[in-house]
Amino acid sequence: MTKQVEFVFDVGSPYSYLAYHQLSKIARAKGAEIVWTPVLLGGIFQATGNHSPIEIPAKGRYSLLDLQRWADEYGVEMTMNPNFPINTLKLMRGAVAMQMQGKDEFDRYLRAIFEAMFGKPRNMNLPTEVDTVLQEAGFDPGAFMALVSDPVVKEKIKSNTEHAVKRGVFGAPTFFVENQMFWGQDRLHFVEKELDCRSQ
Amino acid sequence: MTKQVEFVFDVGSPYSYLAYHQLSKIARAKGAEIVWTPVLLGGIFQATGNHSPIEIPAKGRYSLLDLQRWADEYGVEMTMNPNFPINTLKLMRGAVAMQMQGKDEFDRYLRAIFEAMFGKPRNMNLPTEVDTVLQEAGFDPGAFMALVSDPVVKEKIKSNTEHAVKRGVFGAPTFFVENQMFWGQDRLHFVEKELDCRSQ
Repeated sequence: MTKQVEFVFDVGSPYSYLAYHQLSKIARAKGAEIVWTPVLLGGIFQATGNHSPIEIPAKGRYSLLDLQRWADEYGVEMTMNPNFPINTLKLMRGAVAMQMQGKDEFDRYLRAIFEAMFGKPRNMNLPTEVDTVLQEAGFDPGAFMALVSDPVVKEKIKSNTEHAVKRGVFGAPTFFVENQMFWGQDRLHFVEKELDCRSQ
Repeated sequence: MTKQVEFVFDVGSPYSYLAYHQLSKIARAKGAEIVWTPVLLGGIFQATGNHSPIEIPAKGRYSLLDLQRWADEYGVEMTMNPNFPINTLKLMRGAVAMQMQGKDEFDRYLRAIFEAMFGKPRNMNLPTEVDTVLQEAGFDPGAFMALVSDPVVKEKIKSNTEHAVKRGVFGAPTFFVENQMFWGQDRLHFVEKELDCRSQ
C-alpha cells in the first residue's frame, strides 16, 4: 500500500487554496498519494464552536497580509476574492460529485474552482458566474446542477463533514497522515516530516 | 541605529514561550536588537473580540500536540502547565517593573518566569509558589510585591496593551519589524526575512 496524506478542504478557505498548490508537489516528492476529503467548513465551525478569522476584524485584516506573504513565499498567484466569504455548499457538493465521476473530472473541476476563488477571483456567489466558470472548464452547467442535486451527493458532503469533526477537525485545511492530524497550510513541513517517518 | 525586532508577549502564552526561546538566536544571527513589550493577552482578547484557542475544545486538544511538535523541532524543553490558563496580571506587571530595574534583572526574571510556566511548570496561580520561584531566581518577594503595586507599573502594562491593540495586535506572540506585523511563533521565518531586508 502506498503511503497517503489526506487533505480535508473547502474551496472557500484561502489557506486551503495555498495548501492545494503545495500538496501535489509534497506528495510527489515523498512518494505519497493524496486522499481528497471535501468538507463544509461552515458545518465544521458550527459543530466545533470555531469561527472564521475574519470574525475578529483585526485578525481578518492581518490574514490578508499573511496570505500574501505565503503566496509570495510559494510563488503562487493569489488574490483575495473581493466577494469573500462565499457560500460553497453547491461547489463542495460539486467536488463530491466530481470525485464520483472520476479522477480527471475531479482534478479539472478543482483546478477551475480554486482558480476562480483565489487565483483570478470571480464572484462565485452568483450562480450565473459559477455556470460560466464551469463552461470554461468544459463542464455542462445543466448536468452539473443535476449531479449536485443528487441526494447521495448531498449526503456524502454532510457525512464527510461529520466524520471530520469526529476525528478532531475544527478548521481547514487539515491533513492526516494515518492518525496524525495537522491543521493549517503552515504545518505542511510537519506533514512532510511525518511522511518521511512512514516507510511506504 | 541597530535594526530592531519588537516582541509583544505574555508569559501566560505557550507560543510566546516557544518564541522567547528562538528570538534571541534569530536576533543575534541577524544583528538585530530585541525590543521587549510585555502585554496582557487577556486585555488584548477583550479589546479585539479574539479568544484563546482553548475556548474551542477541539482546537485546545490539537494545540497540545502542535506545541509539542514545535518544541521537538526547536529542541526546546516544554511541558504544558497543568494549571493553564494562569492569570498573569501580577507576573506581567513584574515584567514591566523589572524592565525599569534594568536589563540584567529583566533577563533573569523573564527566564525564571517562563521556565516556571512552560519549562518545568509550577502552579503560578498560587502566590506562595510565585514567591518561591522569585526567591530561587534571587528576587525578594516582598520587594517584588512593592514594585508591582506601583501605579506607574500598573499604568505601563495597561498602556502597552492598549497601544498594541491600536497597532493591530490581536494575539501573542506578535512581532514588529518597523511597521510590519507578524503574529505567531510560526511566522518567525517571515520575521527573519524581514530583518534581512533591513540594511542595518
